[in-house]
Amino acid sequence: MTIDEQIAFIKKGAVDLIREDDLRVKLERAAKTGKPLRVKLGADPTAPDIHLGHTVVIRKLKAFQELGHTAIFLIGDFTGLIGDPSGKNATRPPLSREEINANAETYKKQIFKLLDPERTEIRFNSEWMDKFAAADFVKLCSRVTVKQILERDDFEKRLREERPISLHELLYPLTQGFDSVALEADVELGGTDQKFNLMVGRNLQREYAQEPQVILTTPLLEGLDGVQKMSKSLNNYIGIDEPAAEMFGKVMSVSDELMWKYYELLTDVTPPEIEQMKASDENPRNLKVRLAKMIIADFHSKAAADAAEADFVARFVKKEVPDEVEEQTLAAGSYNLAELLLQTGLAPSKKEAKRLIEQGGVRVGGEKASNAGAEIELAGELLLQVGKRRFLRLKTG
Amino acid sequence: MTIDEQIAFIKKGAVDLIREDDLRVKLERAAKTGKPLRVKLGADPTAPDIHLGHTVVIRKLKAFQELGHTAIFLIGDFTGLIGDPSGKNATRPPLSREEINANAETYKKQIFKLLDPERTEIRFNSEWMDKFAAADFVKLCSRVTVKQILERDDFEKRLREERPISLHELLYPLTQGFDSVALEADVELGGTDQKFNLMVGRNLQREYAQEPQVILTTPLLEGLDGVQKMSKSLNNYIGIDEPAAEMFGKVMSVSDELMWKYYELLTDVTPPEIEQMKASDENPRNLKVRLAKMIIADFHSKAAADAAEADFVARFVKKEVPDEVEEQTLAAGSYNLAELLLQTGLAPSKKEAKRLIEQGGVRVGGEKASNAGAEIELAGELLLQVGKRRFLRLKTG
Repeated sequence: MTIDEQIAFIKKGAVDLIREDDLRVKLERAAKTGKPLRVKLGADPTAPDIHLGHTVVIRKLKAFQELGHTAIFLIGDFTGLIGDPSGKNATRPPLSREEINANAETYKKQIFKLLDPERTEIRFNSEWMDKFAAADFVKLCSRVTVKQILERDDFEKRLREERPISLHELLYPLTQGFDSVALEADVELGGTDQKFNLMVGRNLQREYAQEPQVILTTPLLEGLDGVQKMSKSLNNYIGIDEPAAEMFGKVMSVSDELMWKYYELLTDVTPPEIEQMKASDENPRNLKVRLAKMIIADFHSKAAADAAEADFVARFVKKEVPDEVEEQTLAAGSYNLAELLLQTGLAPSKKEAKRLIEQGGVRVGGEKASNAGAEIELAGELLLQVGKRRFLRLKTG
Repeated sequence: MTIDEQIAFIKKGAVDLIREDDLRVKLERAAKTGKPLRVKLGADPTAPDIHLGHTVVIRKLKAFQELGHTAIFLIGDFTGLIGDPSGKNATRPPLSREEINANAETYKKQIFKLLDPERTEIRFNSEWMDKFAAADFVKLCSRVTVKQILERDDFEKRLREERPISLHELLYPLTQGFDSVALEADVELGGTDQKFNLMVGRNLQREYAQEPQVILTTPLLEGLDGVQKMSKSLNNYIGIDEPAAEMFGKVMSVSDELMWKYYELLTDVTPPEIEQMKASDENPRNLKVRLAKMIIADFHSKAAADAAEADFVARFVKKEVPDEVEEQTLAAGSYNLAELLLQTGLAPSKKEAKRLIEQGGVRVGGEKASNAGAEIELAGELLLQVGKRRFLRLKTG
């Protein structure tokens, strides 16, 4: 890929890229020197259960990795070991070293579905924060003004609403920013809600005489409803550990509009290719099938994607049986298929029955019939279908 | 002393005492258990040159010490070792361990003029702050809200004026407050400008499940001009290392109004005694002499105070000689004093001359004459004085 193509690949679907020129310089230098860029993605150390919403940004890490750069997955265990020291947030108890390590393993198991373990550094910020003395903290804090930190959206809002902000909360963006200094990050990735913290890193690197990192933010992904952010608590998510069949069904359920967003944020299909699909008159259902198979291939395999499709089609067809179906009662026994169609009135003649079967227009028990001479065992119930609309349920009397 | 008397002694001249009831409880408990109170006074670790302005609060420490309690003189070397990490304040370079130790020695040399070295703990806050990890700092910061800290007068002012506040500056009141936790202080003393920081200590102790310290603030002392705060840079100060004669002269130069303030803040004279002096018709000059001698006795000795008085009187009298004095020329030689007064016209008769001498109304060379028959050796110049106003300079022709 040319540098321009690399930039287009990286910034697809991104919200902020600060600044593209800096990224270009870094990519060009990396190409010239052969020294890969260090690309950081931070995660909190609580037990992860990754869904597609999380993969939007992980895919950016993967994109850099595919371009030959170093992916750094940073687990912020320093703050995790502290928890919420004010004790006011019961949902943030301090984690033990063991819990954090267990969570890290869970992270690895999940992110390595997308990332190449060989070219991923898993790091913990306790590595440098545990060595930080009180004086180091004071020095770090001297690099920013109170005003700069209080400009963060949520702080501003809480100040305005006169809700308390504990002083230690102001320290967290700084420690996160310092992680970039410690890692000598070239690029940091995050959701749009992380933009402020990523900028702190960029500014701190400048203070510590490093080249400032490029920051790239990705949008929040809407869940299956197409309205709310994808989240577990809203139950509008696709988990990356879900069975292929589940994933397939969920992707098929999204709106046409949301499908395009998913193509943009969850696949490597390029913007021109997406435009081409939009311009074609292909059935959206087929486009969703392709999308679903791409996603399943990422987290399971190509074969699993094919199987899920087949499974879905089978179940989809069954679903097309109308609620009210005509019934006939026959004696239990063995029937020639073409004769059965004639006998039940589904075909006007045996010849027509054969033609329908040979053209694939007949389904027996949901399965497409292809042999007009097949012997059908009738015992209990059996659903016959001719064309799209004619159904008949046979019962044994 | 009864507890009431102790409280009166302690709070004389104080501005804030938060809270008197708490102090009473602590004093009563100390009296009952025999366990002395721990009374803290913090100082910054820059080179000290103590003047009377500083002694106002040191005298409070001394007062507690005289009541049998433990004086803790805390040198805030933790922040001194950091200096101004933002590098914006050239006047606050980081100090070396050696410089801080040297400054501590200078402090001791000066404060032990007032305090009993045997019952004074000299402490450094690096003792606990150097052991503080980053996580400890975060936990400490979680004990206060941003709003609480920004309420400090100077922060509020700078925010209002949109002047930058470096984030580390918010940490300093907290470390100062934590010193009280580390020292388990019962009382902390400071100037009125320290009230906020002392209150942080009080609140932090509560957070760390300690009984909150009582805080006591003392007013700023006006300098010799009676208007500005006493300070070296304004050259309106009395240094505690100054010679006794200098001290004496400076005290004698203050206004009558300021004298009362100095009695209140720089001596152990009780408020009722001060009221009594005010009500008497004693010459203010005599009251200033007493004040000056008390101050000199504190920093030099009683004997030095007496000597300084004598010296001052001598110089003071000389000073009362008008610039223009009538002169007469006589032959060098020996003269009877009474005859000399008659001969020079300072007395109308020898009898009157004798009366004046006997009543102490005659000075020869600045010294009060008492013997009318004294023989005066005239060689060079000699100043004669009769009463307050009449001067004559004799010269030998």
